[in-house]
Amino acid sequence: MIPKSIQNLIDELNKLPGIGPKSAERLVFYLLKRSDEEVKRLGEAVLALKKGISLCPSCYQFSHNGTCTICADQSRDHTQICVVETIPDLMAIEKTGAYQGVYHVLHGRIDPLHRIGPEHIKLKELHDRVLSDTTIKEIIIATDPDIEGETTAMYIARMFEKKNIKITRIARGLPSGGNVEFADDTTLRNALKGRTDY
Amino acid sequence: MIPKSIQNLIDELNKLPGIGPKSAERLVFYLLKRSDEEVKRLGEAVLALKKGISLCPSCYQFSHNGTCTICADQSRDHTQICVVETIPDLMAIEKTGAYQGVYHVLHGRIDPLHRIGPEHIKLKELHDRVLSDTTIKEIIIATDPDIEGETTAMYIARMFEKKNIKITRIARGLPSGGNVEFADDTTLRNALKGRTDY
Repeated sequence: MIPKSIQNLIDELNKLPGIGPKSAERLVFYLLKRSDEEVKRLGEAVLALKKGISLCPSCYQFSHNGTCTICADQSRDHTQICVVETIPDLMAIEKTGAYQGVYHVLHGRIDPLHRIGPEHIKLKELHDRVLSDTTIKEIIIATDPDIEGETTAMYIARMFEKKNIKITRIARGLPSGGNVEFADDTTLRNALKGRTDY
Repeated sequence: MIPKSIQNLIDELNKLPGIGPKSAERLVFYLLKRSDEEVKRLGEAVLALKKGISLCPSCYQFSHNGTCTICADQSRDHTQICVVETIPDLMAIEKTGAYQGVYHVLHGRIDPLHRIGPEHIKLKELHDRVLSDTTIKEIIIATDPDIEGETTAMYIARMFEKKNIKITRIARGLPSGGNVEFADDTTLRNALKGRTDY
């Protein structure tokens, strides 16, 4: 009915998360209206995506052949490690420009309901990294402030409690632009507990 | 901060309609977790998309090198032409399986507010096609049942009013102000079946 190359791309896009058959169709018809150059750029970007991509052997974020650009950057503070669950979390923190240390990506969180234990995420790697590098002074735990994230945070804190390392947790409180009236109990409770001098 | 090939694909996806920076990021991280084979399939589908694709010289839907599969299909009823605004409209009608004739894609509709006049869409082509082919018995107007669609329908009806051709309009089983592309199969089927003389 419609040319195979069109149906084929609709089918491929339809496999992606959050793209249903209608959106896939719309995207393809959009691309058909774009210049050959633009479509080629997208296609080649997809094909190039995984070329030479691996995980940084130090922090486990994506890197291009070996150590990632953050770990390789000597102007950053290598005495601070910010522990995040995922690479998008790392990217969100990087975008703030407010952090100058390095990272450690766990690639998950402890989640017993989904049978994910400490051994399934990069916790042993964090342990070994911190113990083998005596220059590390602080571990900032930036896991999500939900049950699994807090469980993981607690596990990390216990892992290093007898070592001479400062362990901190990103603040829990009201989001900026938020609203006291509609904040949930736990958020408000945390905001009160974590209050700072004005 | 993150490898260039990753940032590059995020940027390219972000240019697509309905895909914001967050969705682009999510799609790329999804692809990074898929096999090389799957990513390659998607990339090659994008690159192959426009290869040999042109508009059918008869009905103006997409075709692969020349006449489209619908116009080339001799088992279809070439005495009936269903006039649609867009190719997705054609696809929606094809999916019902309720129509066995051929099509004519206008690639737009008369829309004075957006300065789109009869000369900007494939109306002259429809006119010439119908006049040069004496076997055509019926023109089914399947433009959207909204103001621009009705205007276009009226224009087509007038264009052929003194010719010996039956002009019909898909029934308003479609909700007024609605949209052919997103109508469900049954509604479209009923609309085709219930078409009335214009």
